[in-house]
Amino acid sequence: MRDFLPAEKARRERVLAVIRDRYRAHGFDEIETPVMEEYARLHAGIGGDNEKLAYNVLKRGLDADAIAAAADDPSQLTDLGLRYDLTVPLARFYATHRGQLPTVFRAIQIAPVWRAERPQKGRYRQFVQCDIDIMGDASARAESELIAATLDTLDALGLEGGTVRINDRRALDWMLDSFGFGADERPEVLITIDKLDKIGPAGVAAELRERGATAVAVDAFEGFLTRPVTMEYHPFGERQIRKLLPGSAPDEVVAHLVGIGEAVAAARGGSSEGSPEVPLVFDPFLVRGMGYYTGTIFELAHPSVDYSLGGGGRYDGMIGRFLGQDVPAVGFSIGFERIVDLVPAADGGAAAAIVLVHDRDVPDGELLAHKAGFVAAGSRVRLEQRTKNLKALLERAAADGYTSFAAVQAGAAPGSLEVKPLA
Amino acid sequence: MRDFLPAEKARRERVLAVIRDRYRAHGFDEIETPVMEEYARLHAGIGGDNEKLAYNVLKRGLDADAIAAAADDPSQLTDLGLRYDLTVPLARFYATHRGQLPTVFRAIQIAPVWRAERPQKGRYRQFVQCDIDIMGDASARAESELIAATLDTLDALGLEGGTVRINDRRALDWMLDSFGFGADERPEVLITIDKLDKIGPAGVAAELRERGATAVAVDAFEGFLTRPVTMEYHPFGERQIRKLLPGSAPDEVVAHLVGIGEAVAAARGGSSEGSPEVPLVFDPFLVRGMGYYTGTIFELAHPSVDYSLGGGGRYDGMIGRFLGQDVPAVGFSIGFERIVDLVPAADGGAAAAIVLVHDRDVPDGELLAHKAGFVAAGSRVRLEQRTKNLKALLERAAADGYTSFAAVQAGAAPGSLEVKPLA
Repeated sequence: MRDFLPAEKARRERVLAVIRDRYRAHGFDEIETPVMEEYARLHAGIGGDNEKLAYNVLKRGLDADAIAAAADDPSQLTDLGLRYDLTVPLARFYATHRGQLPTVFRAIQIAPVWRAERPQKGRYRQFVQCDIDIMGDASARAESELIAATLDTLDALGLEGGTVRINDRRALDWMLDSFGFGADERPEVLITIDKLDKIGPAGVAAELRERGATAVAVDAFEGFLTRPVTMEYHPFGERQIRKLLPGSAPDEVVAHLVGIGEAVAAARGGSSEGSPEVPLVFDPFLVRGMGYYTGTIFELAHPSVDYSLGGGGRYDGMIGRFLGQDVPAVGFSIGFERIVDLVPAADGGAAAAIVLVHDRDVPDGELLAHKAGFVAAGSRVRLEQRTKNLKALLERAAADGYTSFAAVQAGAAPGSLEVKPLA
Repeated sequence: MRDFLPAEKARRERVLAVIRDRYRAHGFDEIETPVMEEYARLHAGIGGDNEKLAYNVLKRGLDADAIAAAADDPSQLTDLGLRYDLTVPLARFYATHRGQLPTVFRAIQIAPVWRAERPQKGRYRQFVQCDIDIMGDASARAESELIAATLDTLDALGLEGGTVRINDRRALDWMLDSFGFGADERPEVLITIDKLDKIGPAGVAAELRERGATAVAVDAFEGFLTRPVTMEYHPFGERQIRKLLPGSAPDEVVAHLVGIGEAVAAARGGSSEGSPEVPLVFDPFLVRGMGYYTGTIFELAHPSVDYSLGGGGRYDGMIGRFLGQDVPAVGFSIGFERIVDLVPAADGGAAAAIVLVHDRDVPDGELLAHKAGFVAAGSRVRLEQRTKNLKALLERAAADGYTSFAAVQAGAAPGSLEVKPLA
């Protein structure tokens, strides 16, 4: 968990303001939920490993008997937990407030989440997620709106050139079926396939054999993974998708993906078939870890980095766990902590910022009147008592984003100060 | 703890943006600390009753032995706590990062805090505080900058007419001494005096007698509380302060208060002695609950409500608990949850917001292309599939802040849609 000093905090707030503005432009509405959720609800969300990483809050007013009785079941010591993602709280929120929300509800959530992970480079125990979700729309239009809004946001942050890797859990299931893996083997097989980028086809096949997966299925799958594929003339679209999947994939799934490609291409000013510029890449081996995905899944890529900048997918079953009635839902989360470091530094186009360097004997009333005058005129103003090393003082102010300064002596008339640029 | 739906969340973000902007204009810099602090540090902050209200986080990986061993000391079950205010974390932050901060450091913190209070109207277990603090300046200029920035912020929110009730803990101590209360009686006597507004002079005297306070001191104090005072010709300044305090109050304390009055008056465009418009009221019986205050204390009042909208004071001793070296510090906190409901509704000056009402058969690609066009032109855009009750749909959109709409049929050329205002 980190402290943020002024320069970094200002950068974060600036990036968040852009993200919020773009999401809102695309018709999403921001909501907020408490950082703590009831323990039982939080852990009803099929969050997989993330549930184990939740910080749970000690019940208040526990007496010795209550503590002793909980020795074999620590969950009795807690009634609340800090959210570990924004999706479970959103499903709970939607189930609670559905009657007050539009039929198709487009939500923004920009907020911290907590995971009790081992500290390591680039992993934080408190980090900000920026999620957009659409509830109540089962069509490919929902995915298309999410992807268009996300890419537009990347553009607005100066990160043009983002692409989205996309797949569908139903295509994965169908692929595994077609090779002969049993339905009960699926979760384990998917965990292994998720490592394809790292360990390659031979590594995947070896791990599957080690896990004791159906041998004939592993052989067939390894043959498929290592077959030569020529893609040059197939931009994102039906031909590419069918070429990358074995046999004849279900029409419904392919049509959903093709529909997303066409709509995103239109939103981005291109066309799908015929234009290689659709910012989508079909990846039949994309898995995504969360257990709750039921359909489309996607990850955000950018040419400047080799890791994903965000991701999401469809989780049509989750709201039903809270509401008792299924509602289609799909979300896209930007990994804010990964994005913020990539965003180009401030453009300096902010309002004038002025340092008033005053002698020790200037009365506070005069100082505050000078300051009030510049503030009223739209400036940001800092008072600094003159020190022997004026140069160091001004350099420090410049490093803090101040652009000009004025010397203040006792008795100077309001409005009479000479403002000079900081070199 | 509350969920915030879109209209309320938008209002909160709008108010926060104004507060952040005004604080920054006055030369304050925003920082951020993690919501959880180490348990031991959090409870080193002399936070008084608030410490008892902290939410503490269950240690991860506790086994049965560890739980059983903690039966008589629940604090062994926790290693982290959620902050219950922003002052203790700020003192910890300042002690950690002092070398990277300006000599006089003006901090903004805008963030939620948590208190495990009994739920009641207007009290929340998670609520946002907006704090500004100045570290490294022992002079009255620090208080003056805080008060000027806070009143300017109220003005910017459309809440002109705010005033600040001010007192000094040293004046309180001196007053109690002068009536003959013992130093050991002070904390209890202050708790009673804090109720003066509610129970009146007779109630205060009765409660002090009940508590067994020094009888002769209580008699003298009751006489002082009930004496007739004529204030008409004494605006905030030395004459008023001396008139409201018994005997001859310490010059240093009076001068500090007078200095604040003069500087704030100058910042607000008035002058102290001679102008009744100084937005300060000296209240010799203002106490403020927190145990860590050492000097000036103040509360923010507004004519539209009979409760305080914020408050603060000087806590010169607290940073020393973390740094091992005292640093003067003073802060002013706006009670965001109390302010936000008072702020006039949106002025409607936001960017155009348009609803695209489309027939069911319009291809997603066409819809997203229309949407992208309006977004690129600076609008906020929501897609809505046409329903039988178009009127209800448009009313709902208007209630959600949308200002115009366009009907979309299949095949409409980009840029050809007719945009109409929502009635």
